[in-house]
Formats: sequence, C-alpha cells, structure tokens
Amino acid sequence: MSPTRPLHELSADEIAAFRQEQQAAYDRLLASGLKLDLTRGKPSAEQLDLSNALLELPTTYRDAAGTDTRNYGGLLGLTGLREIFAEVLRVETSQLIAGGNSSLTMMKDVLTYLLLFGGVDSARPWIQDEQRRFICPVPGYDRHFLLTETLGFEPVTVPMREDGPDADAIAALVADDPTIKGMWLVPTYANPSGDVCSQEVAAKLASMSTAAPDFKILWDNAYAVHHLTAQETKSADILSLAAASGHPHRPVLFASTSKITFAGAGVAFLAASQEQVAWFVKYLGIGSIGPDKVNQLRHLEFFGDAEGVLAHMAKHRAILAPKFAEVQRILNERLGGLGVAKWTDPVGGYFVSVDVLPGTASRVVELAKEAGIALTPAGAAYPQGNDPDDTNLRLAPSFPVLEEVTAAMDAVATCMLLAAAEKLSA
Amino acid sequence: MSPTRPLHELSADEIAAFRQEQQAAYDRLLASGLKLDLTRGKPSAEQLDLSNALLELPTTYRDAAGTDTRNYGGLLGLTGLREIFAEVLRVETSQLIAGGNSSLTMMKDVLTYLLLFGGVDSARPWIQDEQRRFICPVPGYDRHFLLTETLGFEPVTVPMREDGPDADAIAALVADDPTIKGMWLVPTYANPSGDVCSQEVAAKLASMSTAAPDFKILWDNAYAVHHLTAQETKSADILSLAAASGHPHRPVLFASTSKITFAGAGVAFLAASQEQVAWFVKYLGIGSIGPDKVNQLRHLEFFGDAEGVLAHMAKHRAILAPKFAEVQRILNERLGGLGVAKWTDPVGGYFVSVDVLPGTASRVVELAKEAGIALTPAGAAYPQGNDPDDTNLRLAPSFPVLEEVTAAMDAVATCMLLAAAEKLSA
Repeated sequence: MSPTRPLHELSADEIAAFRQEQQAAYDRLLASGLKLDLTRGKPSAEQLDLSNALLELPTTYRDAAGTDTRNYGGLLGLTGLREIFAEVLRVETSQLIAGGNSSLTMMKDVLTYLLLFGGVDSARPWIQDEQRRFICPVPGYDRHFLLTETLGFEPVTVPMREDGPDADAIAALVADDPTIKGMWLVPTYANPSGDVCSQEVAAKLASMSTAAPDFKILWDNAYAVHHLTAQETKSADILSLAAASGHPHRPVLFASTSKITFAGAGVAFLAASQEQVAWFVKYLGIGSIGPDKVNQLRHLEFFGDAEGVLAHMAKHRAILAPKFAEVQRILNERLGGLGVAKWTDPVGGYFVSVDVLPGTASRVVELAKEAGIALTPAGAAYPQGNDPDDTNLRLAPSFPVLEEVTAAMDAVATCMLLAAAEKLSA
Repeated sequence: MSPTRPLHELSADEIAAFRQEQQAAYDRLLASGLKLDLTRGKPSAEQLDLSNALLELPTTYRDAAGTDTRNYGGLLGLTGLREIFAEVLRVETSQLIAGGNSSLTMMKDVLTYLLLFGGVDSARPWIQDEQRRFICPVPGYDRHFLLTETLGFEPVTVPMREDGPDADAIAALVADDPTIKGMWLVPTYANPSGDVCSQEVAAKLASMSTAAPDFKILWDNAYAVHHLTAQETKSADILSLAAASGHPHRPVLFASTSKITFAGAGVAFLAASQEQVAWFVKYLGIGSIGPDKVNQLRHLEFFGDAEGVLAHMAKHRAILAPKFAEVQRILNERLGGLGVAKWTDPVGGYFVSVDVLPGTASRVVELAKEAGIALTPAGAAYPQGNDPDDTNLRLAPSFPVLEEVTAAMDAVATCMLLAAAEKLSA
C-alpha cells in the first residue's frame, strides 16, 4: 500500500518497504515488454490526418493576384497567405514573410546573417566579436541551444518562470555586458514548461537597456495558437512593444504551420521591423529565388482565412487535450502528495515539464529506457544537455495514441517513484 | 538593302547608309510598341504545364518504406527520390541528399558552413582567412558571382571555352595561391554559353595541385539533363575523377528539378564524398528537422523512375528546341557574315551567349529597352556586372512563346546592327 504523505517524512523502514513495492511494480513493467516513445513534440498521425486535404491542393496554380506559383520569384512569399498569418499572429502583413518548411531554418539564417554581415543596428558583423554570449531561459528548447552553441555563442542561463523568463535577471545581465548579443524565447506555451510570457515581462524585455546596441530577442512563437483549453491566451505583441520602447529592431518573431498542418511540409514565417525584414530578405535573396509558393497556395486554399486557422486548431485541441489530461491524472494519482516531483499543467503547447528529486532525472530516464519507454534525455532542456541539478524531465505526449499515453505515463510514474525511493534510501 | 560582307570592310559612305537603314528599322520598332522579355532562364507556362499532375500528388503520404512523409525527420531526404536522381546524375545514392526547393540555397549553405566551421579538409574556418578569392569562369552565372561576392570572396575571372573553363589558367592560378579557395562551374550547358565541360578539363580540375588544401569545385549541374538535341551529352563524373585523383572532398555537385518540374516548387540535390555529405548534414541539422518530404514523395510518384525523368525532359525539349532554333535562324539571317557578333549554338541549357562589337553591349541593351524588349543587363555574366569589353549579352528564349521569341529576336538583331553601325561610324 502506497503512502499518502511526503516520502521524506517516512522512516527508514517505511522507505525500504516503499522501495520494495516500487521495485516489484517496476519488475512487472519490465516483464510487460512495453515499447513507447514520449521523446519529441511530434504531432500524431491522427493530427496529421486533419490536414490530408492538402494532398489534393492547390486546385489551381495561380493566386488571386494572378501569380503563377509554379515559377520562380516572390521572395517575401505569397501575399494571400501572409495576410492570413499576419492576422493570426497579430502583425502587419508588410512585416511578415512566408518562407520554406522550417522556422528553425529562418532562425539559423538570421543568426548566420548577423554573424557574417551584422544587423541593421550593428556596428560590425557579430563574428568580429571574439566573445559572444546568448541568453537561454531554462528549461528551454534543445534545438535553440544547439544552434547558438554551434554558432559559437556561450550560453547564459536564466530561469523560466510562470510569467516568462526572469526579466529582472536578464535586464541585470545585459545592462553592462556587450558580449550578450541576444536571447531565446518561446513566449506562448514555452517548451517545455508551457508557461506564457506575460505582457509585463515582454514589455520589460522590449524596453530594457542593453550594452549591445543590436541585442536581439529571438521570439519563437511556435505554439501561438496551440491552445489546450478554450482560454486561447493571446501572445504579447513584442513588435509593437519594442517599437514603442525605441528598439524596433530588437525582436525577430518566428512561427510556422509545422504543428498546424504537416510537421515536415508546412510553411514558416518571420516577422520583424520593416527595415529588419528588408535586411533579412536582402541576404535571403543571395541564396534563393523564392520559397515554394505552390505549397503556400496549398495552405492558403486549405485555410481560407484566419478564422480557418483557428477552427483547424480546435480540431487539434480535441485530440491533444485528452492526452494532456491523462498525463495530469496519472501524475496526480501516482505522485500527488509524495513530495517527489512537481510538474506543469500547461494550457497550450506540446510539453509537460517535470522536476523530479534532484539527482534522479537521469536515473528515471535510464529506468524508463530499460522498460521500453523512450524519454527525452535528462538535461535536454539545458544548454549542452547539462541540468546542474539533474532534476528536469520533458514529457511529450502528443505523438502516441491515448492508450499509449496512459501506459507510458503509468510506467514513467513507476520509474519516478522507484528512483525517488532509491535516492531516499541511499 | 543590307550588305553581305563584314561591316568593317565598308566605306564611310556605305556605313552611313547602313546606319540610316538600321535607324529606320529601329524607328519602326519603336512605333510597333513591343513588350517582350528575354532576361531570365525561366521555364514557360507551357513547360510548367507538363508537370501539372504534381498538383494532385502524392496519392498517399507514406513512401515504400512506410515513412510518414507528413511528419518531421529524414534530413537526407526521401530514399526513393534520392535513388532516382542518383541514377540520373550518375552518383551513388549514399552520396546524394535531397533538400528543399533550391540548389542555390544549398550552395549558400555549403559556403556558409565553410566560412563558419571549415570543411572536412580545412585547417580552420574560412572566415579566419582575411583574403579569400574564388574563381569565376566568364561569362558565367550572375547569382553564383553575387553569392561569393556577398560572402566576401574576391572574384578571379578565367575564360570559359567550348570544352569548359580554361583549366591550364586555373591550374596556374591555384598552384601557389592559398587564398583561392574554390571555383564555380556549370559543367553541362554552361550559363550562358551552353558549353560543356569535357572529361579532360574535368580531370585536370579534379587532379590539379592546389595551394589551398581544401579547394572546392562547386559543380552546379543545373542543366544535367536539359538537352536540346538527341545528343544527350553526358556530364563528366567529377566525384569519381576527384576521388581517383586523391581529392575526394574537392567537388560538391548540385542539381535540382527547378527546370524539370516547377521552378519554384521543385527539389534540390547535393552530392559529394560520403564524409563531406556527413559534414553538410551535420550543420544542416542545426537548422532543420528535415526537408519537405511530401513534395519529395510527390516528385517520386510523378517520375516513377530515372527513365521517367528522361522521358519528361524530352517533352521540355520539344517545346524549347524550336525557340532556340528560331534564335539561331534570326541571328544567322540578320547578322551572319557581317562580322558584328558571334554567338553560341548550344545543344542544351537555357541560354545563348552573344558577343557583339566591343563597347556596344550596353548600347544594345539600352536600345532594346527603349523598344520594349527587356534584356539581361550587359555585363551580368561577369562578377560585379563588369564586362571589361562591354561585349557580352545573354539571351534567354525559354519564357516567351515562340511568336514572341521571333519578334523579340528580330528586334534585338536590329538593335545589335544599329549599335554596330553607330560604333563603326563614330
């Protein structure tokens, strides 16, 4: 019988009994031969099916303006699709460009252009600064961190909070240190915590003084419309906030339809000040004669308008919300009150972030792996995969079907309890 | 009545009469109100129509291996499509990757990675070399030259010849100069001359000694299967030649379906040594979770196999060959024997290169523009748009319909003759 009070209040005998109980549960798990995957934020086949009409679109190859989308040209992307997503993302169409299938590629391009050429507000190319640092809110998105690390930026971690990254800590860091060139941010439904950057935090980040005159906020709004409840949180309007604060070129906003239509065959977007968009397009144009406008037209026909995007997202929610509810149910039932883990209960996005007992996260991943459950490696949400407390785990329940989420989460809870019992009886 | 002997043999009176005659023809041209475009190598609507079946493909979202192409993943591209184009391009599938809609983007990526990280055979990132030069065969492709210039490479021009770039001149340049980091080459049906790099020239370039240990040949085989006759010239096998010469990492081969299916919505390819492909994919992966595999599957279904690609190209030829024949007919009839221009008669590709009297190319473009005919700017085929002799013009007859090619070329011939007469009577 499981205890209902915090494990650290148990006696040594009680802990030993608890550990034995969890070990027995884990042994049964091993014998059951599971093979499940909670690693990455991939949409499920059922979600992808929602967009299968794309496979038969477009019905024509000309857009409303008469552009033959099959041919070269149109670096900014198809106007009609830009108009739809300008409304969805609440930016001006003239400040938004539609690109290829990956917003991550656009982020890499922005950073590469800053390195090689400098930005509209740079004194020189960033590569000429021997020391370059970049603020990484933790826990955060591993691909962001890998990108800046590979490009030679030393990570500077700051904590993510319920209302966004710790803006006071960031403001203190950037005020006097010109080597800090920018920061990552997933503002709405952060990866992995699901937290939302508040208007107040966004305003602080937009207006703070920075020693680097060309400080950039890479505002990756990957989950802007990926609500899990009817709440439909609005993202802070970072472009307007920054412009109003006299730093119009500070933010670069990214978004995509990767988790709206097809993860690998969607359309990515970039928004920034007019001048910064022109700067981006100038360098984009040395290596492109235009994006895949046929795919953009395909998406334009599929959505119709901004309402069409939101209506489509409601269908995703209907599939995803029960999976996230199942994660909460199992964590609550199995771990509630035991004081061995705390976790987020996001109202949007693709992840649940769990902090287990310090020093046990990698053990949980190891136990799960042996039991056939693939989890994102412990520490993945930290630069260089290094979680100093070995405490954070990222759960991604979107890809498996609901029954698999149940089985996987039940197994993961067992692993968390066994790791905690091992730790407390050590 | 037009003369039939070289204009430079005419007397001053005869030239004056000839000039008057051409001026009258030009005045009639002005009055006729043409509006035609011979600027860029874009496929015509009729050519794009050949691939309209793509708009209703793919019929499924899984490839033969069962991969769900809609989701993330697969940085190398879809195996089935890689197999088809490995056969078309005569490389190993394992050495070929399929990417997005633009081979130019892949070229930019390769150069960017070389700058920021160095290649598999580099001692250090190229950006650390203050002086960097790049060999540009002229006339050549303006987008190539713009790319290396923007990335900080000083162009070193060498002449293009009927069998490819002047390999002896290149070998002499690169032997002792480590600042020369690489060269551009459109091997088969060069842009704009249409010339083909012979096996011998390719072998010299593959085997020559280079002071830079990491010298690269950017082998842009954009027109590999774009034959205008039944001759179907085979491209030299640069990867094998380089490997056999002990320089396996020297060439990087590029190709795409931009002028096979849809110019803006095709699939691009990169081929290199296995090690160099792995190098490319490593850095590609920091900014991509995979290419648009749905579009790759669309192309795979459309072609079926390598034979399907070649059969499809025969349909392009049927549309393009009459346009190129018309260019030759008019140039021969109007300019033949007058000694005021020489031009190429390509058996493939998208362009005709014309050398008019030195000092008159920009005048021809100006006259044509006033008469409503858009020509590629004089000098466009030279780095920085600078043709020292002001002699070269690039004609692109693919986009207009045949009747427009006739009208435009007749007008261009008049402009060439008037410019020559002006020059010779000056």
